[in-house]
Amino acid sequence: MTDTKVFIHPLALCESDNIGPGTRIWAFAHVMKGARVGSDCNIGDHSFVESDAVIGNRVTVKNGVSIWNGITIEDDVFIGPGAVFINDRYPRSPRMAAATVTYRYSDESRWLAGTRIERGASIGAAAVLGPGLRIGTFAVVGAGAVVTKSVPAHRLVLGVPAREAGWVCTCGRPLATLPANSQHCPHGLSGDE
Amino acid sequence: MTDTKVFIHPLALCESDNIGPGTRIWAFAHVMKGARVGSDCNIGDHSFVESDAVIGNRVTVKNGVSIWNGITIEDDVFIGPGAVFINDRYPRSPRMAAATVTYRYSDESRWLAGTRIERGASIGAAAVLGPGLRIGTFAVVGAGAVVTKSVPAHRLVLGVPAREAGWVCTCGRPLATLPANSQHCPHGLSGDE
Amino acid sequence: MTDTKVFIHPLALCESDNIGPGTRIWAFAHVMKGARVGSDCNIGDHSFVESDAVIGNRVTVKNGVSIWNGITIEDDVFIGPGAVFINDRYPRSPRMAAATVTYRYSDESRWLAGTRIERGASIGAAAVLGPGLRIGTFAVVGAGAVVTKSVPAHRLVLGVPAREAGWVCTCGRPLATLPANSQHCPHGLSGDE
Repeated sequence: MTDTKVFIHPLALCESDNIGPGTRIWAFAHVMKGARVGSDCNIGDHSFVESDAVIGNRVTVKNGVSIWNGITIEDDVFIGPGAVFINDRYPRSPRMAAATVTYRYSDESRWLAGTRIERGASIGAAAVLGPGLRIGTFAVVGAGAVVTKSVPAHRLVLGVPAREAGWVCTCGRPLATLPANSQHCPHGLSGDE
Repeated sequence: MTDTKVFIHPLALCESDNIGPGTRIWAFAHVMKGARVGSDCNIGDHSFVESDAVIGNRVTVKNGVSIWNGITIEDDVFIGPGAVFINDRYPRSPRMAAATVTYRYSDESRWLAGTRIERGASIGAAAVLGPGLRIGTFAVVGAGAVVTKSVPAHRLVLGVPAREAGWVCTCGRPLATLPANSQHCPHGLSGDE
Repeated sequence: MTDTKVFIHPLALCESDNIGPGTRIWAFAHVMKGARVGSDCNIGDHSFVESDAVIGNRVTVKNGVSIWNGITIEDDVFIGPGAVFINDRYPRSPRMAAATVTYRYSDESRWLAGTRIERGASIGAAAVLGPGLRIGTFAVVGAGAVVTKSVPAHRLVLGVPAREAGWVCTCGRPLATLPANSQHCPHGLSGDE
């Protein structure tokens, strides 16, 4: 399915040279200079990728998602529409100042807490991902969940704050237990017709 | 109040020919080819309407809302800012593949679960609407609610997951019980001054 | 740190003449005519500022936030990505009409309920702020919280609906009690290196 060309919509703003073949960047999306986006990705309308963000291959980013510095998205991940990432534990306006006192480090390395979405995971629509987390392979974060702790592989989490609510198959459907083999899908979704 | 012209902001992208008279499409909004939008609608900044979506007459879509394929919005509906629709029960990146196994149907008819917002309903700001639902006439989904079940007519639902929390009038104000006649508003909102 | 120039990204739409020096307005943002934005602000991609909104100095508005009429943002405030404001208690589509009955006042002064974010407060990512509220100085609204009541100064609120969950320092870190002096930061964040 790989296409060797990159498609950048005429109304997108792509300032990065690091976009893999077959990737499509849609209208009103903004990919900053330096951002790394793999091959065969889909970057939806009104999305944003900051200059130090890293996105793997075959990743789907739906509309209106901002991928900040410190966020790493591995291969095959789905990011639902309106999902929100956070890379700062104690957000204050960087320019806030009282007298001679400054309340936030200007050096990004002093405050940035990255989050990693591991291979094949799905982040539900409008989910909120806290700073400094790891979402395991093929895990699913339910729509609207607010995630404050890391999520193990193949786990489903739901709610505010998000709590573990079951296991999920590689294909995204429910499972009774952690699958022994991520490649195997008992739901028979083994073809595309 | 009908205006026979369609207003498309110079910075909007409207690729559809099916826009009713009096409808206004604002900056950085994107309406795809084939999308049907009725008359006297207001489609806010940074919104998106996919090619098979259907929107009725006198509908207000506030900023940053994506209306996907499978979503039907009837007449007189209000969609608050940042509300999020979902049309897929088991989201995985469509291009994800492991060896020769594919985990998601490429044929949209195999996975799409539509949601319908019935006449006069209001969807609160940042509410999340699951797939395969029906939101009844004049129902109100509270701001930030995550809706996982269909909502009867004139019902108010709140919370995560959303639960029934009262009845609402045609004008949007609380009522003690389901009104016998949707046209009648006991709050006296029968004119515009 | 003040820069005397205003930076407006070539792909932003700024129709206001009331932008203070040093403020930066980023790609696909839209600031309407009449909107007041102070100095040294940062208005992120895909954000929106309506014509009667007021934003103070050194305010950070992250991506995808709409600041409506009736919303006032004081100095030094941080608004996280995807945060959503509401200025209407009973939202219905303004153009909805049944027979000769109208269910919403066209006169904004009859329905608008403003919200004020006081100096130095932080609104977390994807938080939802109801109409008619006041968020106190240096208060913090947690990510994904849905705020339905006003929040006192230096208070942390979390959840849906948002509840009080502790005190926060001027620098954003937790405190055991309300600080006697907002200017003092016991975490020692008194400089910028």
